Amino acid sequence: MTNKLNSVLESLDKNHKNALNRLIEVLKIPSISTDPAHDEDCVRAAQWCAATLQDIGFTASLRPTEGKPMVVGHYQCGAEKSPHVLFYGHYDVQPPDPLDEWEAPPFEPCLKDDGANGQVIMARGASDDKGQFMTFLEACRAWKSATGDLPVSITVLIEGEEESGSPSLAPFLDANKDELAKDIALVCDTGQWDATTPAITTMLRGMCSSEVIITGPSRDLHSGMYGGVARNPIRVLTNILGALHDENGVVQIDGFYDDVLPLSADQREQWGALPFEASDFLGSVGLTTPAGERNFTAIEQVWSRPSAEINGINGGYTGPGTKTVIPSKASAKLTFRLVPGQDPQKIVAGFKAFVKNRLPDDCSVEFLGERGSPAVGFDISDPIYQKAALALEEEWGQLAVFMGCGGSIPIVESFKTKLGMDVLLIGFATDDDRIHSPNEKYNLISFQKGARSWARVLEKLAML
Amino acid sequence: MTNKLNSVLESLDKNHKNALNRLIEVLKIPSISTDPAHDEDCVRAAQWCAATLQDIGFTASLRPTEGKPMVVGHYQCGAEKSPHVLFYGHYDVQPPDPLDEWEAPPFEPCLKDDGANGQVIMARGASDDKGQFMTFLEACRAWKSATGDLPVSITVLIEGEEESGSPSLAPFLDANKDELAKDIALVCDTGQWDATTPAITTMLRGMCSSEVIITGPSRDLHSGMYGGVARNPIRVLTNILGALHDENGVVQIDGFYDDVLPLSADQREQWGALPFEASDFLGSVGLTTPAGERNFTAIEQVWSRPSAEINGINGGYTGPGTKTVIPSKASAKLTFRLVPGQDPQKIVAGFKAFVKNRLPDDCSVEFLGERGSPAVGFDISDPIYQKAALALEEEWGQLAVFMGCGGSIPIVESFKTKLGMDVLLIGFATDDDRIHSPNEKYNLISFQKGARSWARVLEKLAML
Repeated sequence: MTNKLNSVLESLDKNHKNALNRLIEVLKIPSISTDPAHDEDCVRAAQWCAATLQDIGFTASLRPTEGKPMVVGHYQCGAEKSPHVLFYGHYDVQPPDPLDEWEAPPFEPCLKDDGANGQVIMARGASDDKGQFMTFLEACRAWKSATGDLPVSITVLIEGEEESGSPSLAPFLDANKDELAKDIALVCDTGQWDATTPAITTMLRGMCSSEVIITGPSRDLHSGMYGGVARNPIRVLTNILGALHDENGVVQIDGFYDDVLPLSADQREQWGALPFEASDFLGSVGLTTPAGERNFTAIEQVWSRPSAEINGINGGYTGPGTKTVIPSKASAKLTFRLVPGQDPQKIVAGFKAFVKNRLPDDCSVEFLGERGSPAVGFDISDPIYQKAALALEEEWGQLAVFMGCGGSIPIVESFKTKLGMDVLLIGFATDDDRIHSPNEKYNLISFQKGARSWARVLEKLAML
Repeated sequence: MTNKLNSVLESLDKNHKNALNRLIEVLKIPSISTDPAHDEDCVRAAQWCAATLQDIGFTASLRPTEGKPMVVGHYQCGAEKSPHVLFYGHYDVQPPDPLDEWEAPPFEPCLKDDGANGQVIMARGASDDKGQFMTFLEACRAWKSATGDLPVSITVLIEGEEESGSPSLAPFLDANKDELAKDIALVCDTGQWDATTPAITTMLRGMCSSEVIITGPSRDLHSGMYGGVARNPIRVLTNILGALHDENGVVQIDGFYDDVLPLSADQREQWGALPFEASDFLGSVGLTTPAGERNFTAIEQVWSRPSAEINGINGGYTGPGTKTVIPSKASAKLTFRLVPGQDPQKIVAGFKAFVKNRLPDDCSVEFLGERGSPAVGFDISDPIYQKAALALEEEWGQLAVFMGCGGSIPIVESFKTKLGMDVLLIGFATDDDRIHSPNEKYNLISFQKGARSWARVLEKLAML
């Protein structure tokens, strides 16, 4: 360990209590972006972030958008050839409802020992994302105070609409490309493998969606008068969608798997060695057995294999009792989770062809709501990912897991497409943090070792 | 033609205007059984019916039930060995909504020439069932006034809850078996083959129903986190229900067709000769091609073949836009139309086995709302049906069609099971009568020749 890093880590440990007080300050601001009654609180949170960045040594300001202000801070380090990184976080939080399920008021942070995790801090935003982005700012503060400089040049972008779908982010990135496009984006909004094993998320599934509406007769019919002889669109819909997977869970759309990039042997091996029981993962939601493609493990099914799911279906009479109707229409909403290599438009086109090819006489079909974004996969052999993994391993004493994520993180897609940047997703949340739920918490160990982790990662990035 | 019948028919023709005025009187009473605001109107309609029966020569009275009163009238004819028939009708009507679609107020009957049908009377209940049951009462009145007697003994039962599901009928039949169980029941609540071709309905499909609820995970899941790996109950439901029919429209439930009685060659021949174009029948509801079993004609599919229809399906998110959910539950409501020979309980049991045999891991199934009644088929070679058909042919100059009916008529089932009676279903409604809809009408030719038809049928029944 370098002397510099050593003094930075010492500074973090010594100032832990002050860091915690700063976290408590920002957690007290009820910056709920989706509720207009909290507009001023959002501005207060943005001002708090800008002031904190200035206090560390950044030039920082609030930048207006159509919605909540962005906070942007810049720091140019002394080293001549250091990389320049963009750090992203969000100061807004989810609404705290239902309030009566909280053990303490959601915006009066409280410390408690929860047994399994030791000391935790409980408040709305404790984990998502105030606790997480503060790990990074505390690492910067420690570097500055212990060494007088930061090891790399850093631009910080903290938005206030992440919990409302980030409507202003893409236009802001477009309008400020030169200012924000840096060597790599760092994002602290993900989790660890488990409470003691660090992780970097390097694969995020993409998604595309389609709604299919089948029309049979021109009006609802009585099933006595017409049962058997009239085309029933619910029957047509179930017949077509019922054939979407074979008995081994393989999606039957032509070409669905054609462009799927195979998992690297290394990655497959690392995942295979993880202490993971599908029955535990599924057991918590009342299931026992992975329902996807038989030739893939549960982890592979969620992180690296595409899926086709029916998210909603509706047709005919669905109230209490019986109504003997043959409806005119039946519809279903589907989403497809995509993996690197797959083109959302091609997948939606394949689905439409699948339906049209199976459509019987006397039916028409309409498709609505198509949209999609491709999967993202980063090259884990790239030195950035390897160095970051090493930094995490040095802090936690455990190999960092290169994780996948079954869902999408829209900002990653934005950084990739708008600014051409790869993203290093490192976070210290744990699965039991209850984000978006009552009694959200962040482990103090996440907060403390998270800041120490970033201190180490920043040093490694400087050495690239 | 006998002299007696001749004078009865003359009396009907001569008194047509008076008969029409009596029909107008009863049509003015808004006897909407489903609306408590019209309870008194229902009693007034019942009183009107009893008074009319008394005026003809019946002993008649209102009989209390838990709901609307029944009207029961008796007439013992002079002939020693005549049969005794039970005539059934209903004095209640459907609500007239939507009121603004009526050309004239629904309870102010008006006469008009509608072109296709000549003179019609327009009012709620004109066809269903006041116009129809009045054809029978006018036939009785003419017999009595022209000959001083009726040709057979007659019990008349007019109920006031048919449009509300007849909740009091079964208990009333149970409590008054001896009084009401006669040689045969006559019901005037069905239609003709077409405006000039009389018909007797001799086959009515039965029905049974089931609701199937599939449960997968114990709560709704995010399709990013769980898509592919978690059992999706909508996929399970579509997969199972999508296999309910083969590509030829044949229901795949084990034993579904085992007990179906084959259609007689005579019946098949009569139906085959009917001037019926499936494309016309289906064209009016936007379809072109019979969707049922390929080896059967459209008429056979609706009248003499069982069917399995999904009447409603529901699961997951069905609002606007997309919600990336894997729901915990998905459900569907089904009805099965049955033909003579099939046992409703056996069909429902077969459906449940069909679902259970196809249920994958990690799913449970629940069935709700099972109920059913068997199909009814009368023997058209029985002299009653043959004589009645002859009477209709003599009035209309066209062979009477022995029709089937795709739906059920619950009272027929009640007469059969509660009182052990066959039912002679003769009615003069036409398909364009708009029953249950705005501008309901009855053709005056239906009213006039309907009464003449009953006059002839009663004479034939006396000769049995």
